Amino acid sequence: MEHKINVAIVGYGVVGNGVAKILDTQKELLKQKSGLEINLKKVFTRNWNKDFPHPIENSRRAKDLDEILNDEDIHIVVELAGGIDFPYYLINKALDKNKHIVTANKALLAEKGKDIFTKAQEKNLRIGFEASVAGGIPIIKALREGLVANDIKKIYGILNGTTNYILTSMYKEGKSFNQTLEEAKKNGYAEADPTLDINGTDAAHKISILSSLSFGGFVDFSHVYVEGIQKIDTIDIDLGKELGYTLKLLAIAKSHNEEVEIRVHPTFLPSDHPLSKVDGVFNAVMVEGDNVGETMFYGRGAGSLPTASAVVSDIVSIAKSISLGIGNEIEITSVNWKHKDLNLTKVKDFYTRYYIRFTVPDVTGILAKIASVFAKYDISIAAVIQKEKVVKLQKSVSNKVVPLVILTHTASENNVQLAIKEIVKNNYSIEEPVIIRVEDEEK
Amino acid sequence: MEHKINVAIVGYGVVGNGVAKILDTQKELLKQKSGLEINLKKVFTRNWNKDFPHPIENSRRAKDLDEILNDEDIHIVVELAGGIDFPYYLINKALDKNKHIVTANKALLAEKGKDIFTKAQEKNLRIGFEASVAGGIPIIKALREGLVANDIKKIYGILNGTTNYILTSMYKEGKSFNQTLEEAKKNGYAEADPTLDINGTDAAHKISILSSLSFGGFVDFSHVYVEGIQKIDTIDIDLGKELGYTLKLLAIAKSHNEEVEIRVHPTFLPSDHPLSKVDGVFNAVMVEGDNVGETMFYGRGAGSLPTASAVVSDIVSIAKSISLGIGNEIEITSVNWKHKDLNLTKVKDFYTRYYIRFTVPDVTGILAKIASVFAKYDISIAAVIQKEKVVKLQKSVSNKVVPLVILTHTASENNVQLAIKEIVKNNYSIEEPVIIRVEDEEK
Repeated sequence: MEHKINVAIVGYGVVGNGVAKILDTQKELLKQKSGLEINLKKVFTRNWNKDFPHPIENSRRAKDLDEILNDEDIHIVVELAGGIDFPYYLINKALDKNKHIVTANKALLAEKGKDIFTKAQEKNLRIGFEASVAGGIPIIKALREGLVANDIKKIYGILNGTTNYILTSMYKEGKSFNQTLEEAKKNGYAEADPTLDINGTDAAHKISILSSLSFGGFVDFSHVYVEGIQKIDTIDIDLGKELGYTLKLLAIAKSHNEEVEIRVHPTFLPSDHPLSKVDGVFNAVMVEGDNVGETMFYGRGAGSLPTASAVVSDIVSIAKSISLGIGNEIEITSVNWKHKDLNLTKVKDFYTRYYIRFTVPDVTGILAKIASVFAKYDISIAAVIQKEKVVKLQKSVSNKVVPLVILTHTASENNVQLAIKEIVKNNYSIEEPVIIRVEDEEK
Repeated sequence: MEHKINVAIVGYGVVGNGVAKILDTQKELLKQKSGLEINLKKVFTRNWNKDFPHPIENSRRAKDLDEILNDEDIHIVVELAGGIDFPYYLINKALDKNKHIVTANKALLAEKGKDIFTKAQEKNLRIGFEASVAGGIPIIKALREGLVANDIKKIYGILNGTTNYILTSMYKEGKSFNQTLEEAKKNGYAEADPTLDINGTDAAHKISILSSLSFGGFVDFSHVYVEGIQKIDTIDIDLGKELGYTLKLLAIAKSHNEEVEIRVHPTFLPSDHPLSKVDGVFNAVMVEGDNVGETMFYGRGAGSLPTASAVVSDIVSIAKSISLGIGNEIEITSVNWKHKDLNLTKVKDFYTRYYIRFTVPDVTGILAKIASVFAKYDISIAAVIQKEKVVKLQKSVSNKVVPLVILTHTASENNVQLAIKEIVKNNYSIEEPVIIRVEDEEK
């Protein structure tokens, strides 16, 4: 049995520094717990000319990738470079060289995971990706192992800290989206370019990965429905609050036997739902299994050490299998355990509840007209709020206009879109209606 | 590689039926996920003369234990008999016969775990015990594997559903302890004899098991501090609510370098703490690691299928290692990874915050007298509530008496006990003061 396992890190940013720090400073703890000596042998980054929180001495700085790829003593390559093309290249090369992989790269796995996992499977190598979803929360392990005895019915959660920080501030302090985004940048909770967080792509990458594990097949990411929070107005957060709802950017995946419904969008949740209470940069994932019922996993979804905690757990797990002379047959559940790609439910076939805010002229009869369009499309109304207060408008109109909010029972997405179209065409709403889906199953 | 793994269940109650149901009805799912065929070969119970939710045909009913113990084709014995003496006997016998063990028996593991784990270690056999703590929540796996890269600082949570159901009802509906307990029995949330739940022993068993894993050594259970909820009065729940606190039966374990502090008692938590929002029969465990920060695991802590979900995850994990020809060296972290017993902090050395309710005569000067005793013992007061309303008394006294609540800053348990003694001796409090610890770290 081989007890000393050598590791190389490629990409030395926030998470890389965290991983190196843990491997270097907690070597003894890891040895006590696992019986393994895990040695950070090399680190590669394109630019060593800056200050690092955890500096790496010259002897461990790799001059080029080949110094890592061609070193037969390096067993595990930890990819923390970011982006898609370079990590894809790197991981393929490393697999060719019979190295196991650990990565935190959700974009890569969601968009190119099928290639990489298939190749690793063929070569009997392991790919650890606990850190790719929900930072330090061991949700990947829970799905693959702890909840293995469950047919997963639904998995949903708050998977992006930046957007949750923004929505929490908007909810609690009544500030606008732009104001809160600026604050988040200032406080280090949003990156300089937060596009992929704000527009929901990051959360969609993560729910795609969780869906593969939960439902046993690869996801064609280009067909995942994604909507971000960039257009959220405080008025909707306030009106939702009045109806007993809290707005979250929710990533949702539900199994419907032969199909899986995956979607990411701003979502109203009942304010007493456990996920409504997940504030700020925290992440939380709710898993519903047929046997276990509802479980929730909560923690820091990002940050140097929380993410590194997950990366190192993968390193230890893979090191253990290497020391036992075992490859990926040690894994309880493979990522595509049904061995077929998942069929995704089409957007028009979604069924959920809706919050729809119209901006209507303050004249009698409009509610009746809108309600009759809803009835025509078989959309049942659960609640209505019509406010006296005049709303600020994007369009300039002279008449007095007011917000009219309709909360529906479960309805067809297709019918809702058709109804909205008809309402807009007839000018019952002065502005484009705001549609926010509601995750609140009817008893 | 051996791919068909045979399992026997000993003890066929609520959880046993759940395990058999999953193994029999979800065989195909387990095979798809893990590649293993897991076969429930035999079930033993003392009494087959009743109706079972998942009936077992005659051919799989073991006439006696030897039919299981002497069957070389049975790889895993699942102990679900309950109690301590019989399971201890059974597990020893089964280990002697080279069988791996899965158990949900927290009492056994907390009180006799050292013997059993040591024996299993020597024989290179595995003991799965995911189901022994927090039902279906995969907290054992999280501590051993997912959070392996952390020095665990603190682990605390709600580990007993019966008491949480009772405290939730008392908090939300203002009902008395006895009334709520009767309801819990009627609704199946409390057993006919709920003593071990109510008096905190069950939660103490569970936190002892979590402590072993978190801090790496066996716990002498007889030295764990345990206090139940049997004396809780609604007046304290109400006064706590006023101070912004929610009462929970909390199991707490904290690492102080060379010592570990383990205690179970009714505890006030800030009402916005995530654990305060864990209602009814749900369990939740909060883990603080040096790298990951705070994480929480939430779900059903009991019940047939949630607990069976955890039992079956252990069966699959052990079946996987058997199929690979590996014993317990596959485990990332052994239960006593520091290879020494934990030193428990003595009760008198606890430091925490306190809520203390005195019953005082409604005369001037009493608060000053009590405060001066507190000052003498170096106990700093954070808040005081003195109520005008007269309290119902256990002792019969003629004078008007009122409740006086003092909330302290962090203080020494020893000093608090000495101060209380002096206050009682001087008759500043007409009745024995009520002491409830407060888990609310000062900023």
